Amino acid sequence: MTSTASEPIGHAKPIILELITYNREYYEKHDTLSVEELLLHKKANQVNWVNLDGLENQDIIEKLQSHFCLHPLLIDDVLSDQRPKVEEFDEYLFLTLKMLHRLDSHKIEYEQISFVLGKDFLLTFQEKEGDLFDGFRERIRLDQGRVRKKKADYLMYRLVDIIVENYYNVLDKIGEIMDDIEETVYENPTNKTFNRIQSLKKELIYLRKALFPLRDALGKIVKGEYDFIHDENIRFYSDVYDHVVHIIDSLDTYKDLTTGLLDIHINAMNTRMNEVMKVLAVISTIFMPLTFIVGVYGMNFDYMPELHWRYGYYEVWGIMGIVVVAMLIFFKYKKWF
Amino acid sequence: MTSTASEPIGHAKPIILELITYNREYYEKHDTLSVEELLLHKKANQVNWVNLDGLENQDIIEKLQSHFCLHPLLIDDVLSDQRPKVEEFDEYLFLTLKMLHRLDSHKIEYEQISFVLGKDFLLTFQEKEGDLFDGFRERIRLDQGRVRKKKADYLMYRLVDIIVENYYNVLDKIGEIMDDIEETVYENPTNKTFNRIQSLKKELIYLRKALFPLRDALGKIVKGEYDFIHDENIRFYSDVYDHVVHIIDSLDTYKDLTTGLLDIHINAMNTRMNEVMKVLAVISTIFMPLTFIVGVYGMNFDYMPELHWRYGYYEVWGIMGIVVVAMLIFFKYKKWF
Amino acid sequence: MTSTASEPIGHAKPIILELITYNREYYEKHDTLSVEELLLHKKANQVNWVNLDGLENQDIIEKLQSHFCLHPLLIDDVLSDQRPKVEEFDEYLFLTLKMLHRLDSHKIEYEQISFVLGKDFLLTFQEKEGDLFDGFRERIRLDQGRVRKKKADYLMYRLVDIIVENYYNVLDKIGEIMDDIEETVYENPTNKTFNRIQSLKKELIYLRKALFPLRDALGKIVKGEYDFIHDENIRFYSDVYDHVVHIIDSLDTYKDLTTGLLDIHINAMNTRMNEVMKVLAVISTIFMPLTFIVGVYGMNFDYMPELHWRYGYYEVWGIMGIVVVAMLIFFKYKKWF
Amino acid sequence: MTSTASEPIGHAKPIILELITYNREYYEKHDTLSVEELLLHKKANQVNWVNLDGLENQDIIEKLQSHFCLHPLLIDDVLSDQRPKVEEFDEYLFLTLKMLHRLDSHKIEYEQISFVLGKDFLLTFQEKEGDLFDGFRERIRLDQGRVRKKKADYLMYRLVDIIVENYYNVLDKIGEIMDDIEETVYENPTNKTFNRIQSLKKELIYLRKALFPLRDALGKIVKGEYDFIHDENIRFYSDVYDHVVHIIDSLDTYKDLTTGLLDIHINAMNTRMNEVMKVLAVISTIFMPLTFIVGVYGMNFDYMPELHWRYGYYEVWGIMGIVVVAMLIFFKYKKWF
Amino acid sequence: MTSTASEPIGHAKPIILELITYNREYYEKHDTLSVEELLLHKKANQVNWVNLDGLENQDIIEKLQSHFCLHPLLIDDVLSDQRPKVEEFDEYLFLTLKMLHRLDSHKIEYEQISFVLGKDFLLTFQEKEGDLFDGFRERIRLDQGRVRKKKADYLMYRLVDIIVENYYNVLDKIGEIMDDIEETVYENPTNKTFNRIQSLKKELIYLRKALFPLRDALGKIVKGEYDFIHDENIRFYSDVYDHVVHIIDSLDTYKDLTTGLLDIHINAMNTRMNEVMKVLAVISTIFMPLTFIVGVYGMNFDYMPELHWRYGYYEVWGIMGIVVVAMLIFFKYKKWF
Repeated sequence: MTSTASEPIGHAKPIILELITYNREYYEKHDTLSVEELLLHKKANQVNWVNLDGLENQDIIEKLQSHFCLHPLLIDDVLSDQRPKVEEFDEYLFLTLKMLHRLDSHKIEYEQISFVLGKDFLLTFQEKEGDLFDGFRERIRLDQGRVRKKKADYLMYRLVDIIVENYYNVLDKIGEIMDDIEETVYENPTNKTFNRIQSLKKELIYLRKALFPLRDALGKIVKGEYDFIHDENIRFYSDVYDHVVHIIDSLDTYKDLTTGLLDIHINAMNTRMNEVMKVLAVISTIFMPLTFIVGVYGMNFDYMPELHWRYGYYEVWGIMGIVVVAMLIFFKYKKWF
Repeated sequence: MTSTASEPIGHAKPIILELITYNREYYEKHDTLSVEELLLHKKANQVNWVNLDGLENQDIIEKLQSHFCLHPLLIDDVLSDQRPKVEEFDEYLFLTLKMLHRLDSHKIEYEQISFVLGKDFLLTFQEKEGDLFDGFRERIRLDQGRVRKKKADYLMYRLVDIIVENYYNVLDKIGEIMDDIEETVYENPTNKTFNRIQSLKKELIYLRKALFPLRDALGKIVKGEYDFIHDENIRFYSDVYDHVVHIIDSLDTYKDLTTGLLDIHINAMNTRMNEVMKVLAVISTIFMPLTFIVGVYGMNFDYMPELHWRYGYYEVWGIMGIVVVAMLIFFKYKKWF
Repeated sequence: MTSTASEPIGHAKPIILELITYNREYYEKHDTLSVEELLLHKKANQVNWVNLDGLENQDIIEKLQSHFCLHPLLIDDVLSDQRPKVEEFDEYLFLTLKMLHRLDSHKIEYEQISFVLGKDFLLTFQEKEGDLFDGFRERIRLDQGRVRKKKADYLMYRLVDIIVENYYNVLDKIGEIMDDIEETVYENPTNKTFNRIQSLKKELIYLRKALFPLRDALGKIVKGEYDFIHDENIRFYSDVYDHVVHIIDSLDTYKDLTTGLLDIHINAMNTRMNEVMKVLAVISTIFMPLTFIVGVYGMNFDYMPELHWRYGYYEVWGIMGIVVVAMLIFFKYKKWF
Repeated sequence: MTSTASEPIGHAKPIILELITYNREYYEKHDTLSVEELLLHKKANQVNWVNLDGLENQDIIEKLQSHFCLHPLLIDDVLSDQRPKVEEFDEYLFLTLKMLHRLDSHKIEYEQISFVLGKDFLLTFQEKEGDLFDGFRERIRLDQGRVRKKKADYLMYRLVDIIVENYYNVLDKIGEIMDDIEETVYENPTNKTFNRIQSLKKELIYLRKALFPLRDALGKIVKGEYDFIHDENIRFYSDVYDHVVHIIDSLDTYKDLTTGLLDIHINAMNTRMNEVMKVLAVISTIFMPLTFIVGVYGMNFDYMPELHWRYGYYEVWGIMGIVVVAMLIFFKYKKWF
Repeated sequence: MTSTASEPIGHAKPIILELITYNREYYEKHDTLSVEELLLHKKANQVNWVNLDGLENQDIIEKLQSHFCLHPLLIDDVLSDQRPKVEEFDEYLFLTLKMLHRLDSHKIEYEQISFVLGKDFLLTFQEKEGDLFDGFRERIRLDQGRVRKKKADYLMYRLVDIIVENYYNVLDKIGEIMDDIEETVYENPTNKTFNRIQSLKKELIYLRKALFPLRDALGKIVKGEYDFIHDENIRFYSDVYDHVVHIIDSLDTYKDLTTGLLDIHINAMNTRMNEVMKVLAVISTIFMPLTFIVGVYGMNFDYMPELHWRYGYYEVWGIMGIVVVAMLIFFKYKKWF
């Protein structure tokens, strides 16, 4: 079976279309079929999960649109960058949110994923190949957990839950980076530390932007506004909602902490500056009077009695010694050491 | 056909009055007629879009006012600078908002556009000639898309949508400028960079001021408070509303990012200051003791034994070498390099 | 006719009591009568506008209080500094707000004005003589506009509207000052600039304090909570409300902009400091080594071979030239120029 | 009559128990009786105001508790530090708030006062002897104002009103201090000024903490939620509510102003620093080249032709003069003067 | 009786399972039984408090889960870090919050405690052994207070109340640390002080994160949304709610104060910097001219008349004295001392 729709030419990302259809007794998986064939495998009275990875192929999307009667505005939302939101249509519920990938390279990647939840089907649209659901697909196949006993709304919950769980991973990673920076900032703050804090802060700003509207969207679901979510499953969405709120709380906490880190960094810089200035001031204060004194006895006046004293030279050293000691006492008093 | 109303004398901006009247079967366009003639072409049971560019001509506006029974407060709002708002009157719905132009010269221009939506007509009042709707006018003429099948409220949606789409262009441009500044600020921050950030921040403040009330106005429409918007078209307004919310989110994000950029700039300045001070301190700390030493042996005391030593001169050089090395070790220890 | 109530002794401000009574056909104006006489001229079925300038005369106020059955708490509110508010009593509606005067001397003056709106009368209490209503009084007399055709609630709207219009003048003035400061702060920031920004910020804080509660008060009127405002006139109050909201928006924008100006100022100061430090560092770095070198050859050792070289003096100059060039290259490399 | 309950041993604060019972015709005052005796003087159909100063005596409080059936949680609230709040019980209404004392020593003292308002009684619990009510007690005795004609809820209003009036005194005092600091900060800012601003800011923070919840508590009363406050008296509470809101507004304004003062102070410090640096740079820039020049002619080379010129010495002075003039021109150009 | 379930191998924390069952007449306590045995001792019509310390033992938790029909999501919440929340299930009410431990080592430890409140039972899940309830367990045994006369909802109130009381202890400790820091920051601010403020601020941020959602949770209980809390006990929860609000208020106050402390610290650092710079400038300004003067007379020109004057040397000293005095006057004028 080959997909006629996806044409991976050159650097084009492969487009993957996949159908999982199941109920308590039955499980079937089809992938990279042509859209028409795939939709033939859809079964009434089962949960039909149609997943599309890659949104470049207009043709596939149009076929899905016409088959599921998707509203043109909905398709617009799927294809363009959206803030997370939920929207009810007559025949389905639309939910879009962001999936996170790889924080390893200090950069979080965002992928938009959209859900269209109907009575007996769930469409998922992903921008790129590869997602967080492989383990879960296996669980469906093996009939682990409750998913095979439940409807499409529970399936959507599980997918959203997996995405939100992954936010926690990102959060933990940020926590680690934070601890690492905190250590550095106290011990050896450099310009690089500062820039790390700044780029972390930037990530937090973007994360918050992705999560804040998600809270509102899930909040609407939890209030029971939508008939597509069965009442007995609202508690599950409520649980995801709590997680999102918790994550937002943590982001806010992290944001406050980065502000603290910046303050610490700035203070460290100022302290160092202070130190440099003190060294400069100490050196100047000690050597300027000395240089003056030796300058005095470098003058060429015909009549300078001290020059002819027997111990004049040693006395000058003595005076200079006294000056140095006086200065050091002065600095001690000023608590510069 | 000449317009008797618009008299472009000297530097006066041309005033353009235009009527587009259409339904499923029929399309007609008239422009720069006298008001009276133009209004004769209005047709019942069609969508009549009357567009006025330039608000200087009192005469035209008064004629429109009397023909459409426009409330004096409404005319005041059209003519003066308003925050975006929606207001329902008995015979029509009034909506005013800001249109953006050209960010090329780093300066966003705002033009106020007001809509008066009646049962079978839409009035649009623009401050200046030239708008974003030319492509769309062509689409109406060619009967592309849904517009010819719909009523005046859909027409207004399309115009608002085009304006809001254009906000995205401005937003993208800001994003680019932002990236550009960020690069500069890390690599070679100057006073000019700082001023660029500040003027960007200023633009963001103004943009937010134009968009925040628009969100509220569209929010009221989306709630279905107004009968002039048909229920089946509310979803379209809802889509525009989502876009505006998304844009505001992005503006807030950008605002947070500019704060970050300012912090980076200030830190860069401080770091540089620190460096200058270090150079000064290093130079002073090395040369002050040296100058003192050579000053000592420039004194003219009769009795200074060192002066007569065979290798006194070389020994002084030796001592000075030791001093320099000691200082360098001190700086190394202080991590000034 | 002389007022027995107002006794301008010494520096006491003159107290002016004035009655304007009108309807469609009739107009009469009386001023500085004794309270009793004045109230005799009040006419049922007309709009009776009683205006009092100056609140020092207890006697007048008590007579007004007893004649109009004013609640003691209301009188307290009239006489003491209040935040703008609206309050409904059985026989009248009470509204108090702030009127602005003269920004010329960089200082906004606030005058509290209170309105008591009854079925057929409007009382206005002003702290000082002179108000913004003279032009409007003339319009009433000449029967211009709608005011003679309307009731007392419309009269109150017009007065409030005039006051709010005047806020715009103040706002424009602030805008001009802002532009002026912005230019200065980029070109030649001094301590005086900083203090101007600070005093502007202070004015904005006070303005906001006067306007924010006014918004709430007008908001209550607009909601139609009070029977003293006829339904057909609520739209007028709604218009004033919009203006107040617009002004508050602008104040917030200005506040954000002043923050920006302060940042620019501080940055300018730091930049200047940086420059001073650089000059100091450059001078020190160039001359300290030179001074050291000439110090070396000012030593009086018996045996210093260079002193006796034929071109020793010129060679020293050469070395010093090399040092200077090296330093300049170093500074070029550090980008200090 | 001696109080058996209050035993002022050693440093123990005196505990004062006092009963004022009145109606239109009748007035009686008893104080420092034993609780039992005092409660015998309570009269039905009169307003019975029982006031307790000092909360150390467990015995008195327990007797009051059992006599008035006070809920244990209420007693807990009376005895421990509470945020202002109102709470309804079956037999009474409980209100607790903070009373302010003496700002003379730059330190506001807070005293918690709790009210228990029943049908015909009002209990007030104060932490310390001495309150703001002495003048008002006299007014009750002399039957001035409305209080003798009203019930216990009006009595509570008057007491709360007196306390809130006193907030205004504190506010005025803060205003004066603010003006005083502002003058100092522009003219002669020292570290002491900074610390004064900081301690003022601290007072504002504490004040706000005491007032913000009071607003909420009074807001609940104003909404008419509690039957213990008669409808005709709600307007009075509404008036106190407005005052509290006004005071909070002023506190917020003051807080914004202190931020401004801090900015001014910091700017003054930086300006001064700048000045110090400039003096240093000017001195160094002028004298370093001069010292170098004289150093040159202090060298002891055998062959230095200038030393033997007839006017060499004067020419050196000339060159140094030129250098100084050049430097001064440079500083003028840099606008350092 | 030995617990078969808890196996303290190696460093594993001991798991404690405990049952307290009581009513007015009866009291029994069992601990570290196996789950099955323990649950046999549960008695209908009594309050059964089952407490589990340590959540590592899957087995115990599963048995409890199946016995009490606990929802899997609830168990997830018990086992993972949650923000405080309340959630109603059909058979029980779930409440989770944070318990604080030991601030001695400047570090607050958080332990999550979860409550499951049924008709006649209360389950408490704690992460670690040891809690704040020992004194209270004794009170139950001895039948002190009301607890034996009340149901499980009152028991939960008491436990929550004890936890919240403990927040006050932590708060007082923070208050003390704050006062201590404040003293230091005015008298002898060091980098260590700064870091103490920062770590305090961090604790406040974490505390707020733990308390803010608790307020919401208790707020829901107080509104009477849940049937598991009897109406007559809501007042008790209301009291705890007030305490939590009070604590949050205090945290906010403390946060504002730490900001003030940081400002004070930064100001102290800047003041010190200023002082260092002044010393440097004073020394330079005094000695640079002097060094120049003595340099002049160290020149070796053949013709320098001053060198041969009888009192030239003393006159130079005189001139230098004048220079020093002039400088000191200059500094006095600049108010540098």
